[in-house]
Amino acid sequence: MTQWVYSFGDGKAQGRVDMRELLGGKGANLAEMSSIGLPVPPGFTITTEVCTHYYSNDKSFPSQLEKQVLDGIKKVEKITGNKFGDEKDPLLFSVRSGARVSMPGMMDTVLNLGLNDKSTKGMQEKTGDARFAWDSYRRFIQMYGDVVLNVEHHLFEELLEARKDVAGVLLDTELSSNDLQELVKDYKELVKKELGEEFPEDPYKQLWGAISAVFKSWQIPRAKTYRALNSISDEWGTAVNVQAMVFGNMGDDCATGVAFTRDPSTGENIFYGEYLINAQGEDVVAGIRTPQHLTIKGKNAQGSNMPAMEEVMPEIFKQLDGVRIQLEKHYRDMQDIEFTVQKGKLYMLQTRNGKRTTKSAIKIACDMVDEKLITKQEAICRVDANSLDQILHPMIDPNATKQIIGSGLPASPGAATGKAVFCSDEAEQLAKEGIDTILIRIETSPEDIHGMHAAKGILTTRGGMTSHAAVVARGMGRPCVSGAGSISVSYENETMSAGSVVVNKGDFVTIDGTTGEIILGKVKTVQPELSGDFSRLMGWADKERKLKIRTNADTPTDSKTAIKFGAEGIGLCRTEHMFFDADRILAVRQMIMSEDVQSRQKALNKILPMQRNDFESIFKVMKGLPVTIRLLDPPLHEFLPTKEEFDSLAKQSGVSTEFVKKRVEELHEFNPMLGHRGCRLLNTYPEICEMQARAIFEASVNIKKETGETVLCEVMIPLVSIKKELDNLKLVIDKTAKLVEQETGITPEYMLGTMIELPRAALCAGEIAENAEFFSFGTNDLTQTTYGLSRDDASRFLSHYQQSEIMTNDPFQTLDTTGVGELIKIAKERGLKTRPDIKLGICGEHGGDPASIEFCHNVGLQYVSCSPFRVPIARLSAAQSAIKAKK
Amino acid sequence: MTQWVYSFGDGKAQGRVDMRELLGGKGANLAEMSSIGLPVPPGFTITTEVCTHYYSNDKSFPSQLEKQVLDGIKKVEKITGNKFGDEKDPLLFSVRSGARVSMPGMMDTVLNLGLNDKSTKGMQEKTGDARFAWDSYRRFIQMYGDVVLNVEHHLFEELLEARKDVAGVLLDTELSSNDLQELVKDYKELVKKELGEEFPEDPYKQLWGAISAVFKSWQIPRAKTYRALNSISDEWGTAVNVQAMVFGNMGDDCATGVAFTRDPSTGENIFYGEYLINAQGEDVVAGIRTPQHLTIKGKNAQGSNMPAMEEVMPEIFKQLDGVRIQLEKHYRDMQDIEFTVQKGKLYMLQTRNGKRTTKSAIKIACDMVDEKLITKQEAICRVDANSLDQILHPMIDPNATKQIIGSGLPASPGAATGKAVFCSDEAEQLAKEGIDTILIRIETSPEDIHGMHAAKGILTTRGGMTSHAAVVARGMGRPCVSGAGSISVSYENETMSAGSVVVNKGDFVTIDGTTGEIILGKVKTVQPELSGDFSRLMGWADKERKLKIRTNADTPTDSKTAIKFGAEGIGLCRTEHMFFDADRILAVRQMIMSEDVQSRQKALNKILPMQRNDFESIFKVMKGLPVTIRLLDPPLHEFLPTKEEFDSLAKQSGVSTEFVKKRVEELHEFNPMLGHRGCRLLNTYPEICEMQARAIFEASVNIKKETGETVLCEVMIPLVSIKKELDNLKLVIDKTAKLVEQETGITPEYMLGTMIELPRAALCAGEIAENAEFFSFGTNDLTQTTYGLSRDDASRFLSHYQQSEIMTNDPFQTLDTTGVGELIKIAKERGLKTRPDIKLGICGEHGGDPASIEFCHNVGLQYVSCSPFRVPIARLSAAQSAIKAKK
Repeated sequence: MTQWVYSFGDGKAQGRVDMRELLGGKGANLAEMSSIGLPVPPGFTITTEVCTHYYSNDKSFPSQLEKQVLDGIKKVEKITGNKFGDEKDPLLFSVRSGARVSMPGMMDTVLNLGLNDKSTKGMQEKTGDARFAWDSYRRFIQMYGDVVLNVEHHLFEELLEARKDVAGVLLDTELSSNDLQELVKDYKELVKKELGEEFPEDPYKQLWGAISAVFKSWQIPRAKTYRALNSISDEWGTAVNVQAMVFGNMGDDCATGVAFTRDPSTGENIFYGEYLINAQGEDVVAGIRTPQHLTIKGKNAQGSNMPAMEEVMPEIFKQLDGVRIQLEKHYRDMQDIEFTVQKGKLYMLQTRNGKRTTKSAIKIACDMVDEKLITKQEAICRVDANSLDQILHPMIDPNATKQIIGSGLPASPGAATGKAVFCSDEAEQLAKEGIDTILIRIETSPEDIHGMHAAKGILTTRGGMTSHAAVVARGMGRPCVSGAGSISVSYENETMSAGSVVVNKGDFVTIDGTTGEIILGKVKTVQPELSGDFSRLMGWADKERKLKIRTNADTPTDSKTAIKFGAEGIGLCRTEHMFFDADRILAVRQMIMSEDVQSRQKALNKILPMQRNDFESIFKVMKGLPVTIRLLDPPLHEFLPTKEEFDSLAKQSGVSTEFVKKRVEELHEFNPMLGHRGCRLLNTYPEICEMQARAIFEASVNIKKETGETVLCEVMIPLVSIKKELDNLKLVIDKTAKLVEQETGITPEYMLGTMIELPRAALCAGEIAENAEFFSFGTNDLTQTTYGLSRDDASRFLSHYQQSEIMTNDPFQTLDTTGVGELIKIAKERGLKTRPDIKLGICGEHGGDPASIEFCHNVGLQYVSCSPFRVPIARLSAAQSAIKAKK
Repeated sequence: MTQWVYSFGDGKAQGRVDMRELLGGKGANLAEMSSIGLPVPPGFTITTEVCTHYYSNDKSFPSQLEKQVLDGIKKVEKITGNKFGDEKDPLLFSVRSGARVSMPGMMDTVLNLGLNDKSTKGMQEKTGDARFAWDSYRRFIQMYGDVVLNVEHHLFEELLEARKDVAGVLLDTELSSNDLQELVKDYKELVKKELGEEFPEDPYKQLWGAISAVFKSWQIPRAKTYRALNSISDEWGTAVNVQAMVFGNMGDDCATGVAFTRDPSTGENIFYGEYLINAQGEDVVAGIRTPQHLTIKGKNAQGSNMPAMEEVMPEIFKQLDGVRIQLEKHYRDMQDIEFTVQKGKLYMLQTRNGKRTTKSAIKIACDMVDEKLITKQEAICRVDANSLDQILHPMIDPNATKQIIGSGLPASPGAATGKAVFCSDEAEQLAKEGIDTILIRIETSPEDIHGMHAAKGILTTRGGMTSHAAVVARGMGRPCVSGAGSISVSYENETMSAGSVVVNKGDFVTIDGTTGEIILGKVKTVQPELSGDFSRLMGWADKERKLKIRTNADTPTDSKTAIKFGAEGIGLCRTEHMFFDADRILAVRQMIMSEDVQSRQKALNKILPMQRNDFESIFKVMKGLPVTIRLLDPPLHEFLPTKEEFDSLAKQSGVSTEFVKKRVEELHEFNPMLGHRGCRLLNTYPEICEMQARAIFEASVNIKKETGETVLCEVMIPLVSIKKELDNLKLVIDKTAKLVEQETGITPEYMLGTMIELPRAALCAGEIAENAEFFSFGTNDLTQTTYGLSRDDASRFLSHYQQSEIMTNDPFQTLDTTGVGELIKIAKERGLKTRPDIKLGICGEHGGDPASIEFCHNVGLQYVSCSPFRVPIARLSAAQSAIKAKK
């Protein structure tokens, strides 16, 4: 017989903390607390399996459930000594939902369940407190009416207000027991009017109504949306916790409170919490009365003149502080607890791992290692790798006042302040004059790279989390707010309008890429403080991880940042970004305009020294660490002039405007992502490959001469789908290396490899590996082609797909392990078979995403490469993955 | 020890006809003819392995080769009785290349090798024919000088002309032996001047020079290009045939000729050939003397007054006719032979399977079955399936005179004549008036579909074999010439210019989509005659094949054509083409403009009856055969108005022009192929899916009511990459079917399935099959995404890729069995595992390509679907694949 109900109480429990899947988080913790002897009001948990049964059996309960619930009630009755439904001294229940993970949006709580007209009178007599009894009853009707019977909440509030008017009072607490008794009548009439039937007086009917309501709330839209956004499976279901009521509001020997076992914002090891005398839990949260501090220290720190619990109820406080220590020892983590004191007796209502800031998470983890509560490995796993992003960038001073004029997507974290500019050239110009700017664009394109580099922050009104602006900004570590739809930009007037506020060119504006906020004027920002704890934790992580962490960097600045954050090499140096510089784009365009090899060669000769210089400066920073350089990847038309520039380009290149126009038209592509780019371009114009190879090898030789340091360069061919595409370019590259060797007398050291970013490349990896010494998985393009989905166009329906649960994650943020992942596995296996020492890494955006990094670890890659600011995240994730995999 | 040299002659041979790979086609057949006792001049073949050795060993020969060649020479000497290099009565050789398949572009022949100053004199004395001796010598020097020594051909020709001037004669044959002797001197001086050394007098040096030249010619650009275009591997190599010379030009008892054992153009079983008295082989081809017929019948048929060989050399003719019968019996195929008669003795120089027209191939195959020479299975394999395309379309009357004004790619076969029009609406208008048109466009787009349907033929100046125009035209069976770069079109003037010729709107023009020719004016065309042999052969094929053949058809007309050609159902009915009709595009655009479900529903309600009507008319034609209907696939912006139409659409839809413009901009996609289309569109706008499902089911029910026939419809969801995309739409479709059932009382019968056209769908086929009853492989999109290559943009480099052998085939024409093929196999296996009775087919362009059909047969698909005009090709290919697989 399936056990659908698990009882707890009186120092015992049928459940355990590791039964979270069956009992939900709350139920499992109640059972655990009970079994370690903490004073938990008795009760029972109806399992999540009942929820699953309910939905797969046309919303009906398992047949034995009723009996098991009755047994559960009997056990509670036995412990508490009073009876559910008793008219004199009734046992009352709270009914709460409790899923595997905490989940806002679902039905939360019904308190005081079991009260009716008769038992309220009994309670009044038993407690001698008429007001308490009737207030409990009216609260119950209001809560039950709202969440179980679906009578709209505001209708109860209106009756309450009306009753206060009649009584001539302002506060709820000023209502007399008679007023409340009248209000109960009003409430019950309301229910009857709305539902066409009486409010249920039968406690058992009340209980089953509440249980059903919890299960029903699992499928309400808000809950579904939350699950979709948080990757929570529909099938997990929720549990229901039915627990004997205790009251913190039966007099001044009663209290209720919430606390953290350590400070959740700083991580300091102090008891941190608040309480209220003579109150119920909701009063603490509601904010009508100001809660008081638990400790004298806390009181003093805040300069409060309200007495601390430590002073008011020293014995109970001592007991609570003991519970605190017992819980931390037992759970080995900082706890978030709820308690109630009823008539001088302490009850624990809840414990769970406490939420905390990134900063405090790091401190708590390190402290607990020092306290020998947890191991270093556990400490590593205690910090959410993704959350590190919050502490690596400048932040808006938490104490600053700010005028928020709009918001967009938090596309790249950090805060930045500067003068509003609307064009990239201007951003670059002002940067040269030492003036900070925020670059504001409707969208950005590859032509804006120099402006994005020059600006302190980027704001766009279109595009999602994976738009050009967002991706490039994250790569550069520039704060970025993207897709701010409420803002409109006029390039003509050089203004940005947000409602009635107009920001002109040159006005100061601040963006917060961590929150998506757009703020008028300057706001003070604070620099990140990478505390000793941070570097301790990262040190432990580095020892655990198996994956090397490289960075995607195209400039010496980015390379330096990445090294500071612990990068062990460059996994992706994109050479095309170097082409956009104002002083070289002309030569690039002349190259594109060329119709024959000679004139193309001529233009390439102009670019060669610039590229060589690029590589030299990067090699210098990297000091012998490996540098993977990807040869030209994007389609040529990305470098083309705009219509306005046709004339000047024609003049400078000595061709007709008509010719420029024709050539631009010829280069137009219907699907540039699937067009003439990458190694296709290099195969049709091998002279480009030759120039880039020469620039790399000459730079490597020069650095060797200058510093004596051997440069480990890895020449990477993009977009290979056919073995011969690589073979042909290998001939060009090897020949160029030989030439450089002959010319300089120094042998350039290099490896030759390829991106695996097309499904066919993954499938043909075995043969491709014959000439490729390394594979770098370009998971952006691989995701695009595996799904047949353009990153730039996906925003049209991706949010719909996530809301309707067609996709649980944005596959451009978190690697699709099913489809894309299988191709990676196939490529890895086939590559290794051909070349057992092949080097394997990943250089897509996913290289900085913890879930994707875990996949990379498990599949056995050797490194991941991510943008500089995500290097610490990757280091920590890689360690967590290694630890997780060991278990 | 490896045998590098294979001798033949005197009724024996070391080689056999099945050693084609080792000996090349020519060598294998010489050996075979010799060993069946035909009079073949003795000789030997140097194997293709020598060629491979030559290239993989830095252009050097295997060490034992020289000895084996000398042995070969000795054997020939023994048979002929004279010696190579003898000064009195020299043995002379012909040296010829001979690859596995006949390959133009390579070095062909050196005749009379072994002659030098001394032996020419010996020959003069021996034959008593000075002119013959010196003419043989000067021919040898000229040939050898050209092809072995690389002295330019025209230099020899110039000397020859000069010598004729000196002698005061017009024809080569009028030169005296003295003149020729002088000419030999001129030639040798020329060689010395060009090369800086003497013409080689040593016969052995001559021989090795010629052998090397053959091997070298394997890698000349022309040969490489030919191989690339014809999928011939570089590694096959060529053989060299060294054979004793025989002379057809030693007097009137000598002759030379070529013949086919049957008429290669009609297939009739008659001896068909030509000969010349006292001539060498090249004279027959050169066209200076008119060759005479072999047979009296042939002579009479052509009304020739030159005597037939049958009359002039009756004995030899009889012998030759015996050879003909012997060869056909032995080879069991029509042969193309070369022979020489030297001094009354017949020599066979070559035999090979004769090239033939499609018509004759069919007749010969059928006749040979009747003659019990071959089996029906062999007959099926004797006809090139692709070549059927030539006989299924109207053709230009072979006897018509025509003024060709340009040419483009033969994009869709058949000929068409009509008035030139430059816009699709006009083509449609004129078609309604019964006027034939040729639609001339720079490029076509989906908006031209109605015009392409209305026109008799399509001509474009841009785009390749897989451009929109080409693909759609082939699908419709409309003749099309695409990418005619030499033609320029002005939409403004409505003219087409080809050099100095200007074609105005309304002028007649003819295109030949089989050859790519563009012809001024009307040209007579002839309708295809699908003879009794054709249908006999197809009948045999139908019995052999395992694959069902369906068609891609969107209209009743196409469906009828396909049924006429033997289609067994529709494998792909694209519903979007139906959306472009002038009378419904407005409703479609209103649907696109809609910003909410209500107004979208309103527009869809207008489209519903039209779509229903579409399906009804197709179902009627298909009479119970299965019809796979693909729901809306392309991105919405394909249906959008052009700028000029913004105003009118705004007016008709009751919105502002500004709104139309905004909506059009919103719908712009960077990579539409990877964008918001297919099931992504249907999932975001399920009401479109609902409308289409309703149209299908109502049509099916109506036809059932009207005809009693059950419609087998297969509803197909495009572009699935995630199981849930299909699941969600299944709910909509199943619900719609239930509703139609409730409304009409008739249960619509249908299967629900999906395209597998994205790599992820192939990988996830196991789970997708849970709700998909069939898979149809959309190999066009699957090729695009597997390669990351847009069909529309590939033309930029595809030809370069084929020329440089990066790709051997255009993957959009012939399925890439390595990459795309593996995904198909994976999908098939996983699909079958989940659903053992899953229906599997292919509906991409590849469904009509023989090589791809073979793959589909081998991989175990159940059907292929192709455009109507390719149905017979597919039937034949499927049979050939089945026969081939059995072996």
